[in-house]
Amino acid sequence: MTHPAFQDIGACVFDAYGTLFDVHSAARRASDALGDKAAAVSAIWRDKQLQYTWLRSLMAAHADFWQVTGEALDFALTAQGIEDEALRARLMELYLSLEAYPDVVPALTKLRAGGKQTAILSNGAPEMLSAAVESAGLDAVLDASLSIEEVGIYKPDARVYQLAVDRLGVEAKRICFVSTNCWDAHGAANFGFTVAWMNRFDQQDERLPGAPAAVIQGLDELPGLLGLD
Amino acid sequence: MTHPAFQDIGACVFDAYGTLFDVHSAARRASDALGDKAAAVSAIWRDKQLQYTWLRSLMAAHADFWQVTGEALDFALTAQGIEDEALRARLMELYLSLEAYPDVVPALTKLRAGGKQTAILSNGAPEMLSAAVESAGLDAVLDASLSIEEVGIYKPDARVYQLAVDRLGVEAKRICFVSTNCWDAHGAANFGFTVAWMNRFDQQDERLPGAPAAVIQGLDELPGLLGLD
Repeated sequence: MTHPAFQDIGACVFDAYGTLFDVHSAARRASDALGDKAAAVSAIWRDKQLQYTWLRSLMAAHADFWQVTGEALDFALTAQGIEDEALRARLMELYLSLEAYPDVVPALTKLRAGGKQTAILSNGAPEMLSAAVESAGLDAVLDASLSIEEVGIYKPDARVYQLAVDRLGVEAKRICFVSTNCWDAHGAANFGFTVAWMNRFDQQDERLPGAPAAVIQGLDELPGLLGLD
Repeated sequence: MTHPAFQDIGACVFDAYGTLFDVHSAARRASDALGDKAAAVSAIWRDKQLQYTWLRSLMAAHADFWQVTGEALDFALTAQGIEDEALRARLMELYLSLEAYPDVVPALTKLRAGGKQTAILSNGAPEMLSAAVESAGLDAVLDASLSIEEVGIYKPDARVYQLAVDRLGVEAKRICFVSTNCWDAHGAANFGFTVAWMNRFDQQDERLPGAPAAVIQGLDELPGLLGLD
């Protein structure tokens, strides 16, 4: 049964990192070199990557996501006492071919078969996004890949979310926005999207403005929300 | 010997929480109730408090620091499985009388004796700041207490740092800005202040733009930087 808030959706817009792509797959695939530090490096890397996007946005000191991702990795490696240029290069390279979660292709295929546009709206630099999309074989199930580089500021600034409205030609409330990142789900809902927070990892809700219209555990639940099961 | 970058300082401007006031003293003073969860609650509380200031600023959904501090505390208590309204109220009350670090009064006294203006520039709401300043007996060593509420956005937005320039009538590079929070030190340096990052807790430098002019370990080193020893 279609969820009442999702009855008139024209496009489904997805966060990329953490939502479609497993950001921790990079460190996992380098666990031969990282050993028992893989999980800690990956967690710090991700935390700092997000912090730096927020802080640079507020400082009006934008740098693209490739640079920020590298700077966050530098912090994480130093924090874990690792100094290894080859390993750094390898981890950055792995970030260009992150694993997609297994529920991505089936869900996006169903959404498109049901007549919905599908798009990525991501902090990622355009080259990072195309590499990851191609590597995971998502080209065939995506209509567009939108990068915040077009507006030069990171989520959750409203200009980022507005980019999807402008580029897809669909008004905000008819866009179903899906993110695993709870703060992004709140930011997008506060902007005006109809949001499904995909709580993949059973995380605690953030005390932030903007209420997601629905909470799902995996992308396999998304077509059902839209009445496409 | 005066540090070359600090030769012509007109005013010393201090971050409050973490720099002058020990934010972890609240949970510590409630350790009879928090038990072995005191440190975890305090760390999550602080992390979320900062995250929420950054995210609300980017979302253009400002709420004052009292509300944000309460929402961050709610997240932290839930994360630690604590549901206790009386304890929540007690922790919030304790946040109004945080302990000042012991090096604060001696350092600020020397700076003023040396003819420097002293001021707080803080995320804190005005009522929070006056309560904390009064409780710690800092009124006598401060010329001004400036709150971001005057500009309605949080650090590291440039409007916050500009507030000190405007209110103290001292140009940015003649303001010595002191913060224990590394991201704040970078933000302030990127803005144009002459910054002393007070690395009280031997933390790792952030990979962010804006280079602090000096790094000190405690406020007792500050008068010396300015040639006031």
